[in-house]
Amino acid sequence: MSGAPPNEGRDTRRLIVERAAEQFALWGYAGASISDIASAVGVSKPALYYHFSDKEEIYVEIVTSVLSEMRMRAEAAVAQQPNAAAKLRAFMRVHAQYLQANEHAYIAAQLGFRGLRATEGRDRALELRDGYEAVLNTIIAEGCESGEFRLADRRAGALLVLSALNWMARWYRSDGARPAAEFADQYCTMLLDGFAPRDPPRKTRRKRSA
Amino acid sequence: MSGAPPNEGRDTRRLIVERAAEQFALWGYAGASISDIASAVGVSKPALYYHFSDKEEIYVEIVTSVLSEMRMRAEAAVAQQPNAAAKLRAFMRVHAQYLQANEHAYIAAQLGFRGLRATEGRDRALELRDGYEAVLNTIIAEGCESGEFRLADRRAGALLVLSALNWMARWYRSDGARPAAEFADQYCTMLLDGFAPRDPPRKTRRKRSA
Repeated sequence: MSGAPPNEGRDTRRLIVERAAEQFALWGYAGASISDIASAVGVSKPALYYHFSDKEEIYVEIVTSVLSEMRMRAEAAVAQQPNAAAKLRAFMRVHAQYLQANEHAYIAAQLGFRGLRATEGRDRALELRDGYEAVLNTIIAEGCESGEFRLADRRAGALLVLSALNWMARWYRSDGARPAAEFADQYCTMLLDGFAPRDPPRKTRRKRSA
Repeated sequence: MSGAPPNEGRDTRRLIVERAAEQFALWGYAGASISDIASAVGVSKPALYYHFSDKEEIYVEIVTSVLSEMRMRAEAAVAQQPNAAAKLRAFMRVHAQYLQANEHAYIAAQLGFRGLRATEGRDRALELRDGYEAVLNTIIAEGCESGEFRLADRRAGALLVLSALNWMARWYRSDGARPAAEFADQYCTMLLDGFAPRDPPRKTRRKRSA
């Protein structure tokens, strides 16, 4: 069982995770079987079980890598920004960029929670998700405290931001037509300014003033 | 094959649709098999095939009833409102109320699109979805034309509203703790006003003015 050189084992493991992410993204966690994953990788089921003890272990590896990576990138992007509004925009842009570059893994991670049983793996996934969301909660708290944001309910504000970003996975297609970060930018502007015009209306919009 | 009285047949058909919605909501369209549905109803597979020719036919019945009902309710609620902001609020509230009252069918309808093959049934489902979204697009167009809303991109605005509402299905639990319409209300206020305080700040927030 230990005949494969270390690199080959690591490559196979990575390939399994990649292909499993595709299968989960297509069929959901419950809908993708170990057999589906093995045949997508092009290995036998026993070969797959050499690397992972079950489907859940593969899923936890996907969700762990997605959320750890997203958190790292979000923290790095946010740290460079001068205020909460700029931080919110950076957070939203980086989230969308990650989705665009890692569509299958992102969707797999997002869809998976629903099908996951209550286990240590699930607890770890939820913990990582909370850690990622904490980056956003911190931005919102900072904005409310500095007076940049005025929200009756901070949690609802964070949830609205996450809804916009998470739902992108359902309609955004990374065919290169338009970068996901552009949509995130638009969302951020709408969330900061609101749909209703600011009063007094901005000068640039007033074309008829004498 | 025609021994059952008409009412019994109709009841069984309705029961199949209800139980199938639960199965789809739990496991996704691809993850729920005809066998799962038959055993959830408590009938044999042949008995189920007496009513529906395949899984897709059941799904199309669910999505058709969900989207037709949502559209009817949205149109009725919106018709009574005096302006676009009130219409947007009514639309969002009614959407959330529908989700709360019909959680499984709503989630099933929402999850299903991804797993559905390109068929007439899928075309019909997409057509109904577009019809529902047209109600929202009309509200947004009305608001932009009346000057109540100021949006650089109307489609992006509609998508932001739908993202907030659609994502509710992923976290809202109808345990009665808080009506879904309350969250929709909060969202609507945030979307209309924006996160950034309106200028000049509202008097009620100014406690220190002499």
